[in-house]
Amino acid sequence: MTDFVSRHIGPSSPDVERMLATIGQPSLDALITTAIPGGIRQPAALDVAAAESEPAVIAELRAKAEQNAVLTSMIGLGYYGTHTPPVVKRNILENPAWYTAYTPYQPEISQGRLEALLNFQTMVIDLTGLDVAGSSLLDEATAVAEAMTLMRRASKAAKDAVLLVDEQVLPQSIGVTRTRAVPLGLDVVVADLRSSDSLRALAGDREVFGVVVQYPSADGSITDWSARVAEAHETGALVTAAADLLALTLLKPPGEWGADIAVGTTQRFGVPMGFGGPHAGYMAVHSGLERNLPGRLVGVSVDADGAPAYRLALQTREQHIRREKATSNICTAQVLLAVMASMYAVWHGPTGLTRIAQQVHDKTRALAAALTAAGYELASDAFFDTLTVVAPGRGAELVAAALSNGINIHGVDADRVSISLDETTTDSDLADLAAAFGLTAVPALEGEVAWPAELRRTSDFLTHPVFSAHHSETAMLRYLRTLADRDYALDRGMIPLGSCTMKLNATTEMESITWPEFANLHPFAPADQSVGIRSLIDDLEQWLCAITGYDAVSLQPNAGSQGEFAGLLAIHAFHEANGDRDRNICLIPASAHGTNAASAVMAGLKVVVVKTAPTGEIDMDDLKIKIKQHGENLAAIMVTYPSTHGVFEDTITELCDLVHEAGGQVYIDGANLNALVGLAQPGKFGGDVSHLNLHKTFCIPHGGGGPGVGPVAVRSHLAPYLPGTPFAPSAVGPVSAAPFGSASILPISWAYVRLMGGAGLTQATETAILNANYIAARLNSSYPVLYSGDGGLVAHECILDLRGLTKESGVTVDDVAKRLIDYGFHAPTMSFPVAGTLMVEPTESESLEEIDRFCDAMIAIRAEIQQVIDGVVSAEDSVLRHAPHTAVSLVREWEHPYSREEAAFPAGVDPLRKYWAPVRRIDGAYGDRHLICSCPSPEAFEHVGD
Amino acid sequence: MTDFVSRHIGPSSPDVERMLATIGQPSLDALITTAIPGGIRQPAALDVAAAESEPAVIAELRAKAEQNAVLTSMIGLGYYGTHTPPVVKRNILENPAWYTAYTPYQPEISQGRLEALLNFQTMVIDLTGLDVAGSSLLDEATAVAEAMTLMRRASKAAKDAVLLVDEQVLPQSIGVTRTRAVPLGLDVVVADLRSSDSLRALAGDREVFGVVVQYPSADGSITDWSARVAEAHETGALVTAAADLLALTLLKPPGEWGADIAVGTTQRFGVPMGFGGPHAGYMAVHSGLERNLPGRLVGVSVDADGAPAYRLALQTREQHIRREKATSNICTAQVLLAVMASMYAVWHGPTGLTRIAQQVHDKTRALAAALTAAGYELASDAFFDTLTVVAPGRGAELVAAALSNGINIHGVDADRVSISLDETTTDSDLADLAAAFGLTAVPALEGEVAWPAELRRTSDFLTHPVFSAHHSETAMLRYLRTLADRDYALDRGMIPLGSCTMKLNATTEMESITWPEFANLHPFAPADQSVGIRSLIDDLEQWLCAITGYDAVSLQPNAGSQGEFAGLLAIHAFHEANGDRDRNICLIPASAHGTNAASAVMAGLKVVVVKTAPTGEIDMDDLKIKIKQHGENLAAIMVTYPSTHGVFEDTITELCDLVHEAGGQVYIDGANLNALVGLAQPGKFGGDVSHLNLHKTFCIPHGGGGPGVGPVAVRSHLAPYLPGTPFAPSAVGPVSAAPFGSASILPISWAYVRLMGGAGLTQATETAILNANYIAARLNSSYPVLYSGDGGLVAHECILDLRGLTKESGVTVDDVAKRLIDYGFHAPTMSFPVAGTLMVEPTESESLEEIDRFCDAMIAIRAEIQQVIDGVVSAEDSVLRHAPHTAVSLVREWEHPYSREEAAFPAGVDPLRKYWAPVRRIDGAYGDRHLICSCPSPEAFEHVGD
Repeated sequence: MTDFVSRHIGPSSPDVERMLATIGQPSLDALITTAIPGGIRQPAALDVAAAESEPAVIAELRAKAEQNAVLTSMIGLGYYGTHTPPVVKRNILENPAWYTAYTPYQPEISQGRLEALLNFQTMVIDLTGLDVAGSSLLDEATAVAEAMTLMRRASKAAKDAVLLVDEQVLPQSIGVTRTRAVPLGLDVVVADLRSSDSLRALAGDREVFGVVVQYPSADGSITDWSARVAEAHETGALVTAAADLLALTLLKPPGEWGADIAVGTTQRFGVPMGFGGPHAGYMAVHSGLERNLPGRLVGVSVDADGAPAYRLALQTREQHIRREKATSNICTAQVLLAVMASMYAVWHGPTGLTRIAQQVHDKTRALAAALTAAGYELASDAFFDTLTVVAPGRGAELVAAALSNGINIHGVDADRVSISLDETTTDSDLADLAAAFGLTAVPALEGEVAWPAELRRTSDFLTHPVFSAHHSETAMLRYLRTLADRDYALDRGMIPLGSCTMKLNATTEMESITWPEFANLHPFAPADQSVGIRSLIDDLEQWLCAITGYDAVSLQPNAGSQGEFAGLLAIHAFHEANGDRDRNICLIPASAHGTNAASAVMAGLKVVVVKTAPTGEIDMDDLKIKIKQHGENLAAIMVTYPSTHGVFEDTITELCDLVHEAGGQVYIDGANLNALVGLAQPGKFGGDVSHLNLHKTFCIPHGGGGPGVGPVAVRSHLAPYLPGTPFAPSAVGPVSAAPFGSASILPISWAYVRLMGGAGLTQATETAILNANYIAARLNSSYPVLYSGDGGLVAHECILDLRGLTKESGVTVDDVAKRLIDYGFHAPTMSFPVAGTLMVEPTESESLEEIDRFCDAMIAIRAEIQQVIDGVVSAEDSVLRHAPHTAVSLVREWEHPYSREEAAFPAGVDPLRKYWAPVRRIDGAYGDRHLICSCPSPEAFEHVGD
Repeated sequence: MTDFVSRHIGPSSPDVERMLATIGQPSLDALITTAIPGGIRQPAALDVAAAESEPAVIAELRAKAEQNAVLTSMIGLGYYGTHTPPVVKRNILENPAWYTAYTPYQPEISQGRLEALLNFQTMVIDLTGLDVAGSSLLDEATAVAEAMTLMRRASKAAKDAVLLVDEQVLPQSIGVTRTRAVPLGLDVVVADLRSSDSLRALAGDREVFGVVVQYPSADGSITDWSARVAEAHETGALVTAAADLLALTLLKPPGEWGADIAVGTTQRFGVPMGFGGPHAGYMAVHSGLERNLPGRLVGVSVDADGAPAYRLALQTREQHIRREKATSNICTAQVLLAVMASMYAVWHGPTGLTRIAQQVHDKTRALAAALTAAGYELASDAFFDTLTVVAPGRGAELVAAALSNGINIHGVDADRVSISLDETTTDSDLADLAAAFGLTAVPALEGEVAWPAELRRTSDFLTHPVFSAHHSETAMLRYLRTLADRDYALDRGMIPLGSCTMKLNATTEMESITWPEFANLHPFAPADQSVGIRSLIDDLEQWLCAITGYDAVSLQPNAGSQGEFAGLLAIHAFHEANGDRDRNICLIPASAHGTNAASAVMAGLKVVVVKTAPTGEIDMDDLKIKIKQHGENLAAIMVTYPSTHGVFEDTITELCDLVHEAGGQVYIDGANLNALVGLAQPGKFGGDVSHLNLHKTFCIPHGGGGPGVGPVAVRSHLAPYLPGTPFAPSAVGPVSAAPFGSASILPISWAYVRLMGGAGLTQATETAILNANYIAARLNSSYPVLYSGDGGLVAHECILDLRGLTKESGVTVDDVAKRLIDYGFHAPTMSFPVAGTLMVEPTESESLEEIDRFCDAMIAIRAEIQQVIDGVVSAEDSVLRHAPHTAVSLVREWEHPYSREEAAFPAGVDPLRKYWAPVRRIDGAYGDRHLICSCPSPEAFEHVGD
């Protein structure tokens, strides 16, 4: 065993013995053999190369990094060079306090990143000139696709109306939108919207429900779209502008020329290109559409003391609640990247952003002048940062000339190339490019713009003080620290969220993602410049196949939800190819993740729910009935294994057989793969397809709510139906903007597998199961463990049933969750998959000491509940209902039946490690009634603490 | 102006206008012209190249880094390859919460790093087998020199007794010890202590006060020194062992074979070689010698609530109190590196360290076996990690052969080479080395040791739980976070310490120090492998000359105190060379830093104090008297400019003239250079020599109490007397172990100068003066500003006089300092240079907003003092006397006349930014009476918070 395996895994060998004794199992082997059905155990040891030490893995990564060639990128097409502010890189991207945080579902302990996300929303609102923006989408292309479905829902156009997309929308956006449109039965028409034809005519004489334009366009040109907007609105269509936020500091924003929706990427706001991602996509809408916004929306509410407090607003829109009624399956966002982009705006402020934009534009104008002076023809004379050069027959030659001077430009076709400048373009880059084009000199131009006056921006933006208060590095550093200090992340203590697998994100795994050789690659750079990252991707695909037992993997999906969607598309396409066009029924157990149903709907499938038996297992009788009922129409079943109830069901083999016999495909949701790695392979025990969550099992940090990576793994018969790219024909189109999705964070999972090796990965799984069973054993007498499998064992998580206690005492899961904050813990998963319960997953990385600290807290809370049951105190007056307690609340007059000490320092809380929630319990409903989704004025905080 | 200058400087242009209005100056120019005597203003703009942007500077650093060649180092000689635990690198070395902290003189807000330093002391105590250890010295060589003076003081040997040093002590330790011995009149005799001659005989028939041996020796051999120890003790001499801590996990420790003192480096405990430093040196002594320990000593005491609390113990030993009676001038330690080394021990624990040592030793034994099998002769068959190969006439050939295989070994002389293995040596490195030596195969050996059984270690070490509790990365991450959270550093708020210049340490400045090309160079690697760092050093020397107006600079001194010492040595040597052997008087003003006097004594000078006039200036009449009195014997005057009173004295020119006329040299202490850069040059207005503090003016972070860099700058006539190295003849010997001292952090200062350029540096100075004068103007009516110069202006800091208030109210500077913690501030400098005052230095990096927050707090505290004066509350019962208030104290019964809210959240304290002191006011005297300087048992904390 290498040193790293013991660093990743929490319990030491003596700890393991003590834990086994508590569980009542003679050995770890015995525990595993009892817990996992023998029928699915994999026969041989995991076929992944032996572990290497941390320095050796870093050396291997260095070697791969050096195989990449980072040239100056002027390719553009949605990806631009950018300078990450060093203070942001070090104190956010390289800081575990930010990157190991979870999604802010417990808002009281997430105020720091919620403020950062509110800044993000305010930034997007201000720059686009619209009214409401969400807290990031996965990328620009999926944002366009989401805009399509939003427009479809909001438009009153006829059912067979089409989506009209300008031909100068980014190719990857068109590709992803087409992929999404097909299963929904929507038609996408791509046309030249700058022509004089009417929208209807361009749509082939069909009604149009939505229009998408790029602003500035993919070829760099700037068009005044206001007439088209008027035309669209007259005919009942909505308009989406895919807009560049940097350009919008100088250009009239979409909200001011009538667009209903703006979408795009915030990549160039300080987030490295990273060979395609992750970056935060954005969407903003005008008032009235906010309840249709996909993804998360941060809003302002108040806490129990009336102080302003942030939390996710309008959560009832979200997929995890709406399930098959959901209109989007988006779950994970790109929080870490959204936070970085928002901090780029905080750092530069309105003046700084405008200056950067003007500098980029000045250089572009200068280049344009030099090109035209030298006789080159430009496709447009209204542009921001991108020039399309028309040079008949010379396209390839010009690309090659630039390349030989160290610059990648975009070869549009045989006759055209395009050149995009950005913040990082230096005078020397310009000179190199000029030389490639045979230009003699590039003039220095300053302060004008190359577009009509009516498209100049005149309105203010980023006027909130936060965008002006932190412009010195000292001030910025302190702002980032104070925000981080409000939040609870893995660097403080355990986050025992069931199904979320909050394990160690080791430094060695994280280290290489900020290396320039991985961070600064354009996703469309020539293949011979990305040899290193491609070989890393190959390795990872191969290892994931070895681990899961599948035959092929695509790493393109940049979130679990996208992996699900891609997997279901593959099933759909497979049936189609077999002529089984009517196979459109997807069976989903009642206990499934909300995304399952939402993804099925997006993939054009009809959801049929399979019941859960009282024991928590899938009701096999009901399954048989449903299979019989839908027979010929059965497309697939989606099951999670081990189940979302945290149990290894021994009916899984039978289930797979039944579905296969009926001609259906088996989709095994890989959310719980952390309980299987090295022990059982879904691709071998019956699955046809799975998506995995690299941000769960494979150590990509949760980043406060993203980025995630959701690869899809399939058996060979589905391999032809994995996602394609917009640049080559494929049976199924792309599901993400970039060919390899969030490529820049794949080194994290690569390093994890390399550091653990097959034996280490297996040991991790066994320890995860051990830890969960230890918790179940310790807490079962306080809170009944709802479901268990053979030998009374659970898998890698367990559900604590509070329903009886709630009935008896009135104390809710919410009360317990918030009270855990006072004890210094993040709550387990609340009321999923069973209302009134808590689902606990410790992962293998938590030590026995920390697990005991958690169990002790839960047992102490159980005693607090007993006080209510015994009538000593009412639930309303109890320390549970008033949790969490802030430090400020301690200095006020004290009117509680319990003491300040019981409130803030209950037994077991080490004063030297005390975490203080910055706000008291937040009133979510209040915030939804008074929806505010941009930065509140500083006055709102004036009386906090009064 | 580049973007960076405005990022480094706090106030914006509108802020500057508002501040000038408060001060009553029409413009920044007018302020500067009034503040600084016209006679010393430099005539032209600062001759330093124009600023470059952050990305450009990083690119320049990358280019320099790539000029270094990092080969595998097997040179040894006190510098070894080591793996910094990634979790330590990211969360300490790259974390502003650790590196921007100040020296823990305010222990209540420094508990995190004090615990880390206590771990360091415990680690050294346990490994050396001695009783007390301090919290780091500057390097191993200066530690040997400090041991010499300690032994001299503690030995009862005759006055002319000598120091006997074994010839196999590291050459740089011998060099530095000789340098230190000369001015003290001590004789150092180097001899072969493994011979059979008596100590007295080896010392040339002279009495011996101290013996120094290396363990294992420089040539790798291990000697049983116990007989020598017995002999030394019989003759009244003490014994110092310079010992390798890693070897001591397997070797009988010096404390167990009778050594009185152990010294050494902790570099190989996770601190990169860095071309020589910085690393933490250590010293441990047996009981009875602790009050003679140089440097800082952390001890355990109790706070006002009786809880255990850490603070610096026995501070009366320190130079800043003992001044000319001081026996060491050590001030800055190597805290950041000591913390890292201690965490390496926490991370690996006793078992891990032993395993690493055994692995290194196993590889060495294997290599030894292969070498002897191939017919090579080894100098010794008792060794740990270093082999000296005796190959007559083949020394150079073998060095070259290793080099051509990518390995540096040490060429001892024509006939011998030595090879040192370390933690990073891989099998492939061994194979490369074997090939160079023509060996066919290196066997695999395991678990034995190559030395006599009586020298095997049998005693336990690192038995305290802290060395076993944090072995998973998750646990370690949380330990580092909870320690960091206890401390107040620049990332939380202002640290307005007078004379310490706590300015921004920008991320771009810090970034390159962890690059392998700078971090992994051995200081004695061939010059053609260090071209990049040497060119960086050349640039920096040149820029420092341009800034100071001197002609030559040495970057060797690795702390300000060493720079002082080197500067005074140069003066001393200059006088000697001129035949002025009796010039041994050093004039020092009463207000000088304590180090000045201590350094003078160390340099063999006699200190004569010059009085301070009532206006705070140097008493020129007294100066004239003293010059006249000492005439022919006058060696030098040491003055700080602007003065430690924070004033530009206009007598400086006259003072320099008077001293020069009397044949003396003028030493201008550069501690306050932050008030001069770009405006006046000490090398031009009268100074002959200055030391600078790169950790003050030039942005090297204070690291919680080190590392510092203290270059010495001289006019041309003193240039021949700058520090040398042990490897070449020089007029003055080395003052630090490594030729370029703490070379690996010089990129920080290099980057600062490059990012600011001449104009930016000048603007920084002007803003520092502006900020100080603004504070003086705002606070003068609450706390009289003690001294000011022309126009009532101060320089870059100001002294607030509390003596009147103390007399009237009983409220002390200590009370105010501790109360500032409740308001969220680090205290200003207390009672220096005038007892009963606070000295405030804001630096240019603090924004107007933060400065106002500080002034508001000071004014609010003034009102609290008024309550005492008005008799509303007694000083004893006041909120001031009971400060700081912990969170735990709020939940207890409240017996104070003020409210909990007044205690913890006084006006202006933002609850969302509240910093909580982890302990209440610490009783320092209690700790000195009950001296405990190693980790207390966990039980000591059991009732904290009761």
